[in-house]
Amino acid sequence: MLSAADNEMLIRTNAGTPMGDYFRQYWVPVLLSREVPEPDCPPVRVRIMGEDLLAFRDSEGKVGLIEPRCPHRGANLFFGRNEKCGIRCSYHGWKFNTDGECMDAPTINLDDNYEKIRSRIRILAYPVREWGDLVWAYMGPKTDELPKLPMMEFALLPPSHRFVSKKYQDCNWAQAAEGGLDTAHFSFLHIPIAESEEDFKAKTSRVTKGYSANSMGSDHIRWMVNDSRPRFTIAKHDVGLVLGASRHADNGHLYWRIAQFLLPNHGYTPSAAKGETYHGQTWVPIDDEKCWVYVYSWNPERPLLPEEVESYKRGAAVYAEVDEQYVPVRNRSNDYMVDRAVQKTENFTGIKGISEQDACIQDSQGRIADRTREILGPTDAGVVQFRRLMLEGARDLQKGKRPVPATHAEGYRVRAGGVVAPGSKNFREVMMDRFGDPYGRFNVELSEEDIAALVRPH
Amino acid sequence: MLSAADNEMLIRTNAGTPMGDYFRQYWVPVLLSREVPEPDCPPVRVRIMGEDLLAFRDSEGKVGLIEPRCPHRGANLFFGRNEKCGIRCSYHGWKFNTDGECMDAPTINLDDNYEKIRSRIRILAYPVREWGDLVWAYMGPKTDELPKLPMMEFALLPPSHRFVSKKYQDCNWAQAAEGGLDTAHFSFLHIPIAESEEDFKAKTSRVTKGYSANSMGSDHIRWMVNDSRPRFTIAKHDVGLVLGASRHADNGHLYWRIAQFLLPNHGYTPSAAKGETYHGQTWVPIDDEKCWVYVYSWNPERPLLPEEVESYKRGAAVYAEVDEQYVPVRNRSNDYMVDRAVQKTENFTGIKGISEQDACIQDSQGRIADRTREILGPTDAGVVQFRRLMLEGARDLQKGKRPVPATHAEGYRVRAGGVVAPGSKNFREVMMDRFGDPYGRFNVELSEEDIAALVRPH
Amino acid sequence: MLSAADNEMLIRTNAGTPMGDYFRQYWVPVLLSREVPEPDCPPVRVRIMGEDLLAFRDSEGKVGLIEPRCPHRGANLFFGRNEKCGIRCSYHGWKFNTDGECMDAPTINLDDNYEKIRSRIRILAYPVREWGDLVWAYMGPKTDELPKLPMMEFALLPPSHRFVSKKYQDCNWAQAAEGGLDTAHFSFLHIPIAESEEDFKAKTSRVTKGYSANSMGSDHIRWMVNDSRPRFTIAKHDVGLVLGASRHADNGHLYWRIAQFLLPNHGYTPSAAKGETYHGQTWVPIDDEKCWVYVYSWNPERPLLPEEVESYKRGAAVYAEVDEQYVPVRNRSNDYMVDRAVQKTENFTGIKGISEQDACIQDSQGRIADRTREILGPTDAGVVQFRRLMLEGARDLQKGKRPVPATHAEGYRVRAGGVVAPGSKNFREVMMDRFGDPYGRFNVELSEEDIAALVRPH
Repeated sequence: MLSAADNEMLIRTNAGTPMGDYFRQYWVPVLLSREVPEPDCPPVRVRIMGEDLLAFRDSEGKVGLIEPRCPHRGANLFFGRNEKCGIRCSYHGWKFNTDGECMDAPTINLDDNYEKIRSRIRILAYPVREWGDLVWAYMGPKTDELPKLPMMEFALLPPSHRFVSKKYQDCNWAQAAEGGLDTAHFSFLHIPIAESEEDFKAKTSRVTKGYSANSMGSDHIRWMVNDSRPRFTIAKHDVGLVLGASRHADNGHLYWRIAQFLLPNHGYTPSAAKGETYHGQTWVPIDDEKCWVYVYSWNPERPLLPEEVESYKRGAAVYAEVDEQYVPVRNRSNDYMVDRAVQKTENFTGIKGISEQDACIQDSQGRIADRTREILGPTDAGVVQFRRLMLEGARDLQKGKRPVPATHAEGYRVRAGGVVAPGSKNFREVMMDRFGDPYGRFNVELSEEDIAALVRPH
Repeated sequence: MLSAADNEMLIRTNAGTPMGDYFRQYWVPVLLSREVPEPDCPPVRVRIMGEDLLAFRDSEGKVGLIEPRCPHRGANLFFGRNEKCGIRCSYHGWKFNTDGECMDAPTINLDDNYEKIRSRIRILAYPVREWGDLVWAYMGPKTDELPKLPMMEFALLPPSHRFVSKKYQDCNWAQAAEGGLDTAHFSFLHIPIAESEEDFKAKTSRVTKGYSANSMGSDHIRWMVNDSRPRFTIAKHDVGLVLGASRHADNGHLYWRIAQFLLPNHGYTPSAAKGETYHGQTWVPIDDEKCWVYVYSWNPERPLLPEEVESYKRGAAVYAEVDEQYVPVRNRSNDYMVDRAVQKTENFTGIKGISEQDACIQDSQGRIADRTREILGPTDAGVVQFRRLMLEGARDLQKGKRPVPATHAEGYRVRAGGVVAPGSKNFREVMMDRFGDPYGRFNVELSEEDIAALVRPH
Repeated sequence: MLSAADNEMLIRTNAGTPMGDYFRQYWVPVLLSREVPEPDCPPVRVRIMGEDLLAFRDSEGKVGLIEPRCPHRGANLFFGRNEKCGIRCSYHGWKFNTDGECMDAPTINLDDNYEKIRSRIRILAYPVREWGDLVWAYMGPKTDELPKLPMMEFALLPPSHRFVSKKYQDCNWAQAAEGGLDTAHFSFLHIPIAESEEDFKAKTSRVTKGYSANSMGSDHIRWMVNDSRPRFTIAKHDVGLVLGASRHADNGHLYWRIAQFLLPNHGYTPSAAKGETYHGQTWVPIDDEKCWVYVYSWNPERPLLPEEVESYKRGAAVYAEVDEQYVPVRNRSNDYMVDRAVQKTENFTGIKGISEQDACIQDSQGRIADRTREILGPTDAGVVQFRRLMLEGARDLQKGKRPVPATHAEGYRVRAGGVVAPGSKNFREVMMDRFGDPYGRFNVELSEEDIAALVRPH
């Protein structure tokens, strides 16, 4: 439960709000690279944290993110022509490059003052990098040294080892993020309804299709159904939280599901067994009532299999079945196509898709969840810690203390996943067994130069 | 004409408003019973007087009307699973019965405190009864003794003798109700446009198809066309008003149309001749700008004929031609499919359907009619008396005086209808002739126990 | 650049605003005559400067423009019946003529007072004239002498010599008007993208199809492409401004494009060469965020050719390709069907249609353009003068000084167009050569009686 003031602080990210300032200390994904697929391709409208912007890839392949208003007469540069390293306004031909500089002002008199006037005309342009097949922007205050990009593993691997996409969600970013960290809900939201053990196994395989934890067959689902009260252990690390939740498994063992929350808006799912493909999500506010969820999968040990990629494209795992604008086919406007007959006999919600089930229940908390009326318990520990960390970060920044993670890109080299361990082992021991590190950190065999080479523009 | 303050008082029924408080002294229809047709069927969203609620029928057939917010994390119980006498939240499995009690909280620790905590968790649930194939709710303050259900005749009869349905309307409840009590408008709104007597008769039979007053053929329509200034006599009784309006008929006779208004929101139509089927409407605010109109027909003397029921289903009499969500096919968004050619040569509005003609003209007064600018005359007497009675009731309640009808269920045993009488008879005499009572009251041959047996749950 | 206060004054035209008062000093087009094609045809909803009105043509062919609210109970007369020289309300039959007088009140007692009461009942009705195949209204304060209709040339000619239509636009009237006066933008907004001289010529002929200036072939387009900095000379005359803009043509000549702005909201396009068809536009606010653009073409010397009229109907010249409600097919809601491939290789915007290109870029300035953040230069002189004139007129009226043009209908007898002239001639000389008058005025060979005969009602 939060006070009304804390709830407001948590959810509002427009420019000038405490949480908006805090988000703007970090690089934020604003597009998939493939949404601006080639030089001089069509510009794309982008709305991020309440700001209406325009992204375009120039003739040299560089992506710009600019305020779309031509300063001459206020026409919208979305209708401009993307030509020769700049967007040219359709009204009177003023032209701007990816840095927001005016390259041509063909209605201003071509006299001795022309160059002086032209060089002073600028529009807002945010620094942009491509990293892990995503376009990231730094929307914070001007600074001599930009923060480093977060070294999330999917971005460090060859493109063949990862898949990235996104999905639109019809609610505030924070409750969507909370749903990702709240691993207790699997015991209801995602479970099959079965009449027999065989029926359960058959339906379980459908639930987990395309997801990780396949190696555990239907057992881990059974453990989650049977134990709806996971015990949480949460440890704070340099760039966020590692969240372990244990449930009773067979023969005195515990089934641990270990998630990561990485500041300010990334979450890794808790299911991957060793060797399996990892999944992550990044919640990016569009405005206070909707968000984009960037979703990505990666396997450090091998390229993704064609059937994996195919299943993601069709909406398996963390992915939703989306239309061409990345809007889920089953969404708020159609009640997620809930099928009450399916809810009686097949799965707990009557809704198809893990991602859609998540979106449904998160959206159902309201466009903006009211956290002043809640009855939280031990299984909500992850949600509580997340809120505390975010509010602390926003408050610290207001006091002038910049967030550490914004400058500690290395801290983002962590993993998450699931494991079955003897009931006698504590969380730290389980983490050491599973990841070789109490926080899930891993070492990367890339030099600074190697990493720099992964970023566009170099 | 009302003052702006009185207009506001009349039309606003959200919780905490004077008229909202007044409505909440009564049982209010919130659903057709057939909208929750069987045990554990899909829950249904209900919005009544600005409150968003959820109705569901539990495993034992009992209907609940609850606040749909799960108190744990605020998820919406609409997406919950209706199972084993309760709605279970899809997020973490908390479960609530029709009384709003928490039956299971599977994320709260199962220790010695569990039962104590669980039993304290409640959500808002309104008392519900099924009565006359409608689901009624009492949404007023907690009370030791609930008001009795109104003994409206259609609910006292065997199901075979009645038909009930509903229709959505796109305006404030009060102007829709006023349209029902204003029997003067028939002289224009519903009349055929004819070129000859024969033409008139043919078209009239189409107007009245499925309606009562068939026994008068086209005569009563002719009388209404010829006399647009009916004389009103209105008498107040225990639970509302009886409204008589007389028009000149043939041979010195008067054609009386006698309607009933029953507090706070029921109206009976004035056309049924002796032995014919009666019709009634109940206007239930969804919010201040739209309402549901519950419509019902009944015949005390015989089961309804299959052709009657069939015509009602297709939109005859007080019924509209509706889609599966009970929204009229001809509505505000499509200008009621007005056909200007039909308006020239067939009927006065160019709109098909008595109910649709009513809705059109009532909606056209605005989402909320402005009663501060009107020029009322003698034919508006019914409207004036209705407003006075409603405002008086709301004001009395604010002073602490509860409405009498809320506790006098017997008063609702009244009838309405039409009759041709010698011009020498006054309203009281006409009422005695037609109904055997000056107010249209009738005696019912049912014992208290008989009546109780008609209510679900018993 | 305007101050925020001046921007507000310029764009707001609802009743009671300074600019709204100023507009209401003039006759304003409110419909095409053909939208109310015949006596007793269906009434038409009209929204002008924030006022919701109803237009209808009565049995004698006279057009009325009335407040659509029946004063009895507030029903909307749109659903009334247009019969025998009046609109009869569908609710209780009250009837009003085109002057807003109550002709019948069939629910008011037919006693000695009836005539007295009836004759006092009035609804708002604005004076209406038909002029040039348009319905014009005077929506200003009551006055003994109505202003004269503006003697715009298209209205003075036989119907065969003109074509009129309209198109909906999704932004404030003033920025649409500014687009019409800003002749500098042609150098980008409307130009073809070509790879060779031949390609340019071919594409140019497509751009100008149906427009005037055909006689100059592709040359004038080439001159505009090559000179994006036209020099403006603007002269104020009795009823507005004449705006000359010259660009370098071949052999030391200048290509002059001369537009007219006629108070308060008319503009003539600058392209017609001698003998060619003229075009004009009138921007009529619907409310502050949208407008109707009335468009008309005329040829003083001959009837319009069938192929001209046909091309206008299909969206050539100032006309848009519109649906049955005069809403452009390519509009804000579908991004004007911008085709980015076409934008790369065919024309500067990727949008089909001169009118649609104009609408796109004007709409893109926002529903209401923010004129407080602009960087204006010499090519924006027309826009600056337009604003100054409008604000001056509105301010003068507030001080009690009525606008002169409202009473000087003769001043509207002006023409606009294009011409190539030796570079040595100044604007005045060019005007004398092209029009025989420094302001583009012409003499009309019609007597006062002839002109009066062109107006309906006479």
